[in-house]
Amino acid sequence: MDRIDETVRWMEREHLDALVLRLTENIVMLSGYQPQLGASAVVVTPQAGAVVIAADVESPEVERGWNKNVSFYSLPGPGLLASFPAIVRAIPGFKKGGRVGYEGSFEWIAPPANFAEANAVGEPTRQMIGETFEPREIVDVTAGLTRLKAVKTEQEIARLRIANEIAGFGLQAFKEAVAPGRREIDIASDVEAAIRLKGTGYKGVLVARSVCQITSGPGTVVHWRYAASGTRVVQEGETVMLEMGTTADGFWADHTRTLVAGRPNDRQREIFAAVAESVDAAFQASKPGVTGGEIDAAARQSLKRHGLEYPHHTGHATGFRYHEASLAIVPGSRDIVEEGMVHVAEPGVYIEGIGGFRIEDDAVVTRQGTERLSHLTYDLD
Amino acid sequence: MDRIDETVRWMEREHLDALVLRLTENIVMLSGYQPQLGASAVVVTPQAGAVVIAADVESPEVERGWNKNVSFYSLPGPGLLASFPAIVRAIPGFKKGGRVGYEGSFEWIAPPANFAEANAVGEPTRQMIGETFEPREIVDVTAGLTRLKAVKTEQEIARLRIANEIAGFGLQAFKEAVAPGRREIDIASDVEAAIRLKGTGYKGVLVARSVCQITSGPGTVVHWRYAASGTRVVQEGETVMLEMGTTADGFWADHTRTLVAGRPNDRQREIFAAVAESVDAAFQASKPGVTGGEIDAAARQSLKRHGLEYPHHTGHATGFRYHEASLAIVPGSRDIVEEGMVHVAEPGVYIEGIGGFRIEDDAVVTRQGTERLSHLTYDLD
Repeated sequence: MDRIDETVRWMEREHLDALVLRLTENIVMLSGYQPQLGASAVVVTPQAGAVVIAADVESPEVERGWNKNVSFYSLPGPGLLASFPAIVRAIPGFKKGGRVGYEGSFEWIAPPANFAEANAVGEPTRQMIGETFEPREIVDVTAGLTRLKAVKTEQEIARLRIANEIAGFGLQAFKEAVAPGRREIDIASDVEAAIRLKGTGYKGVLVARSVCQITSGPGTVVHWRYAASGTRVVQEGETVMLEMGTTADGFWADHTRTLVAGRPNDRQREIFAAVAESVDAAFQASKPGVTGGEIDAAARQSLKRHGLEYPHHTGHATGFRYHEASLAIVPGSRDIVEEGMVHVAEPGVYIEGIGGFRIEDDAVVTRQGTERLSHLTYDLD
Repeated sequence: MDRIDETVRWMEREHLDALVLRLTENIVMLSGYQPQLGASAVVVTPQAGAVVIAADVESPEVERGWNKNVSFYSLPGPGLLASFPAIVRAIPGFKKGGRVGYEGSFEWIAPPANFAEANAVGEPTRQMIGETFEPREIVDVTAGLTRLKAVKTEQEIARLRIANEIAGFGLQAFKEAVAPGRREIDIASDVEAAIRLKGTGYKGVLVARSVCQITSGPGTVVHWRYAASGTRVVQEGETVMLEMGTTADGFWADHTRTLVAGRPNDRQREIFAAVAESVDAAFQASKPGVTGGEIDAAARQSLKRHGLEYPHHTGHATGFRYHEASLAIVPGSRDIVEEGMVHVAEPGVYIEGIGGFRIEDDAVVTRQGTERLSHLTYDLD
């Protein structure tokens, strides 16, 4: 599959003359380029394919992507919105008066490399599109973009492998960091630092970053609803849970791990083993042609054999964002699994007085089944 | 000044019957509550004031705010968009068919506490407003909200002091971390860790986080255009620059510092002293009634006396976001400074072969002048 060909074919089916993308996750999809700040765009026309529009100062990030069809605007200067019309009118196949697709309904967005300020699509982008294209119609293509990004190309999967390897540096740090007497935030900071320090420069990665939420004891029992690293001090024998989104140049991985501080008791070990089995059951059930509902059922049945259950979804797609909306792995989901999809499985068990137990890994769907992208598994202690 | 009264008076002038806010920065402004995830809202009506709508699991974050007029929806459950209409219809003063303001043009947004996924306002929010209010008109009030947030209340300034104190933990770590032989990313990670470790729990802060960009040597000369922490190893005698956005429960601080790894030479010391003087000149020029252009001119004239200049803005507002749009401190700016505004000054000097030098601090405008919110200043070495 070629990402740009696939996009152009979809545009033709939708009678779209152009596509204007501003959001990090969609720019990454069409170019492999993650903006450092959020002042970039990708314009797609059937004639020209995907053209990246970026500030000249972001040439290292653009270079890290694979789309070499780039128009740079200069900084300092009038900026993206003002530079856009002239750049776009010079793109082969540009025409006024057509149907232009834009990102009208993204209400969850991946941040650019600099997490401190995200960019979104509002009225200024719609005006920029209007002035540039004088379009017959501006079409909200959010649903189509979400479906498009569900299946990953080989080069995208290679990047997702790297993101998962980098997440592994954090998972290893978690294993080493958990101990009675430490605060949740101490553990979270160790994990995030490991990813920054070992991930930056790893296999060419420019920006490796994670958000790690650590809960402990009673916090792990409600972790499935709410997780934030605080100043709570971990006690001997308690469960400690990590939830983490990791990005490597705009490619995301999503993980959960559970440990016990000190020595787990037998019941904790049993539950943990049952949860690990349930994750395996989910990935074994996942292959092209099955539904999200079937994967969900496999994970739940596996736990049910141990008399255990959980009150949340089993999984979701991931890759261009921490959580992608393209594949719901929930009871009754009719979403169809396809080769090249990347999704997580994250069953868990939460029992007051014993703790919360969850394991979450990422896998890519292959021709016959799934291949796990995370290879770092460890026991409760 | 009372934030909610001020907002209601503005709504009355604008003939707005209701205001629907979804973005972190605007929710923080009307409540002091920073969402952990981005699935919250604030609805303002002249009769009821500001009502916070949040998931029940975020009660610790809501509690950290000062607005106790809260409607919780339950998680798990149908979520914000589905829960919104019934909650809002029960708010005193709710009426259909009026003019409703929304955040239509925010294209730069502050992330929620979990930086890994930001929330934005798109078609789903507009539909939610439409179904709930059946409004006569949905009005984009971005410009009005931006002006409203320019002047901070006393309790907001107290929170910004805390954010600046926490940023200070990072600035201190920067001072200790810079040394020849270390990578930019090593220094950045130390700084971010200091803020997480010392900021979390500091004066009640739930979530302290920063994004720190370290550049070195030639990178500091272009730092004003582009800054990203990489794997470059700092060399003896080089300038090292920190650019950092810090948030403490949704209140932001923005800083730059410059050091030399090892021993600075005389020219570096002279330039650094001139830059520090220019920052002082900017803050001395800032007081109620002056224009952004006058502050800008003061900073430039100060440097000019040393034969130095810089190719960028002098400052901007900050507080509810890393960069606020309300006060442009650039040549010729006619934006008027008011008591209670919070802004940065960040003049710099960039010379190939010698290095980049910038200092950025935050100050609040008082009745007579400004009060600096950052107290940690240090020399080049």
